[in-house]
Amino acid sequence: MSDRLRNLYESFTRRLAAEPEISIDGMRDLFEQWHLATAEPDGVTYREVTDAPVPATWCTPLGSDTRRAIVYTHGGGFVVGSRHSHRKLAGHLATRCATPVLVIDYRRAPEHPYPAQVDDTVSVAEWLTRAHGFVPAQIAFAGDSAGGNIAVSSALRLSRTGLAPAAVVAMSPWFDLANSGPSLEENARHDAMVNRPTLEAMTGLVLNGQSPETPGANPLGADLTLLPPTFVTASQHETLRDDATRFAARAEAAGRDITLLIEPHAQHVFQMAAGRSPAADRALDQIGQWVQERFLSGARRN
Amino acid sequence: MSDRLRNLYESFTRRLAAEPEISIDGMRDLFEQWHLATAEPDGVTYREVTDAPVPATWCTPLGSDTRRAIVYTHGGGFVVGSRHSHRKLAGHLATRCATPVLVIDYRRAPEHPYPAQVDDTVSVAEWLTRAHGFVPAQIAFAGDSAGGNIAVSSALRLSRTGLAPAAVVAMSPWFDLANSGPSLEENARHDAMVNRPTLEAMTGLVLNGQSPETPGANPLGADLTLLPPTFVTASQHETLRDDATRFAARAEAAGRDITLLIEPHAQHVFQMAAGRSPAADRALDQIGQWVQERFLSGARRN
Repeated sequence: MSDRLRNLYESFTRRLAAEPEISIDGMRDLFEQWHLATAEPDGVTYREVTDAPVPATWCTPLGSDTRRAIVYTHGGGFVVGSRHSHRKLAGHLATRCATPVLVIDYRRAPEHPYPAQVDDTVSVAEWLTRAHGFVPAQIAFAGDSAGGNIAVSSALRLSRTGLAPAAVVAMSPWFDLANSGPSLEENARHDAMVNRPTLEAMTGLVLNGQSPETPGANPLGADLTLLPPTFVTASQHETLRDDATRFAARAEAAGRDITLLIEPHAQHVFQMAAGRSPAADRALDQIGQWVQERFLSGARRN
Repeated sequence: MSDRLRNLYESFTRRLAAEPEISIDGMRDLFEQWHLATAEPDGVTYREVTDAPVPATWCTPLGSDTRRAIVYTHGGGFVVGSRHSHRKLAGHLATRCATPVLVIDYRRAPEHPYPAQVDDTVSVAEWLTRAHGFVPAQIAFAGDSAGGNIAVSSALRLSRTGLAPAAVVAMSPWFDLANSGPSLEENARHDAMVNRPTLEAMTGLVLNGQSPETPGANPLGADLTLLPPTFVTASQHETLRDDATRFAARAEAAGRDITLLIEPHAQHVFQMAAGRSPAADRALDQIGQWVQERFLSGARRN
């Protein structure tokens, strides 16, 4: 059933090829359909938040632990995607973690270049602690693709101020805004959606002239001394694979709690096929168990 | 807050004006954003159905009566819209009716001209009775815009075979495929989205050469002798208003159980602003009470 995800990505790629002059709005409309890859998760209710720093939606599984929260930053190259395109994936993650997930509409590029995305995510975490009484060690971050970058960057920034979250999950993260991973070429023929020209276009939009080595924007170059427990996953055959593997190696070298899961023969953010793909569901099961263990460790520390 | 719906409709109209050569796919992507008008309803879970005649999603409020069902046919001129664009509206309707709503992806024009949409809706109702043991008198139909037409047409067809549903709800229905209502011109300056050129384009796509007077496709010309209890609502200031008022007058003349609610100063399918607009919420409250009364009457008849 990961064929369904591949088919969706191929349809995106065809549409973009057919409309080389597509507007940002048109591209955003197109990628809102990302949700079509994901089955509705069972037993999850949704509620929009109107008093958060940015628009956001709680995805709350029946019977979950509402003293905990996961802040979810969606993928889409910092430019496309939304809390709507990723609502169902967030619901699956919430179910596996038995924890409500807050999917946030951080400000997107090009209207808002880096670091608006990290600023917003950090603001949301601070709002959860300040206005809603959450303990930092009972908050986790999770994201996919560019959202994986935002999740790690936000966690690192908060850790430096003594507000380290319990854990971070990065699914097929896009860390390296210099786009230097060998997998970019090695997997070009396998990856149905993510390719160098697209990444470089997105890089230009989000950096708006800033260096791709800007430490806060590129976790591959960041100081990982304070990295919270982190779960990184990618597909063996995706172009962004080496962002995950290189980051995991650096985190391991820094002596951090790092878990790396590489799935063979899958597409970018293969978890988007949750509810339809055994590989997606297996990975989410593993992530859920891992996150719950980190929340328990965080609770013991408090 | 119905300004939000107007703003959304104006943004659709601007996008269509800016892209006169927009593809059907591009138009469908655009109108998937219709859901942005609607707040997430509280306490509703969702489940996709994989064994129905067409793809469909159950919207089930916590604690609702699962012996009853409402089949929902979304709007979008028979061409655009989906179970995703209308999921949240269906969730609000489900909550008000204390009844699960099944939003269906009937086949759309132009790939599938009339009567594919009615065929699919009737098939879904038959599948609910055959495969899931629902009693026809505990099934209702509801829809908006073109989906209001499909709901009424499907209910009429089933009534002729002795399987009349308990009730039909048509919100801002588009009944008249000849587009002859005086409100089309009278309200042209008030209606931010629906206009004669768009309707005529959609008519061409769905009828594919069939007459706009085809009785099954135009409830305004249909025999209403067996019309189930029907609730019709529209805005005083929308271009399709006279489809609602003319239908209600004909149903009343035929001695049927017909309720007409006209909301002043609102846009097409103003219920799409549910959770954000008092007028939308009031109308849905009234619809919910009306539908529950019809289900109770249906239960007494069985």
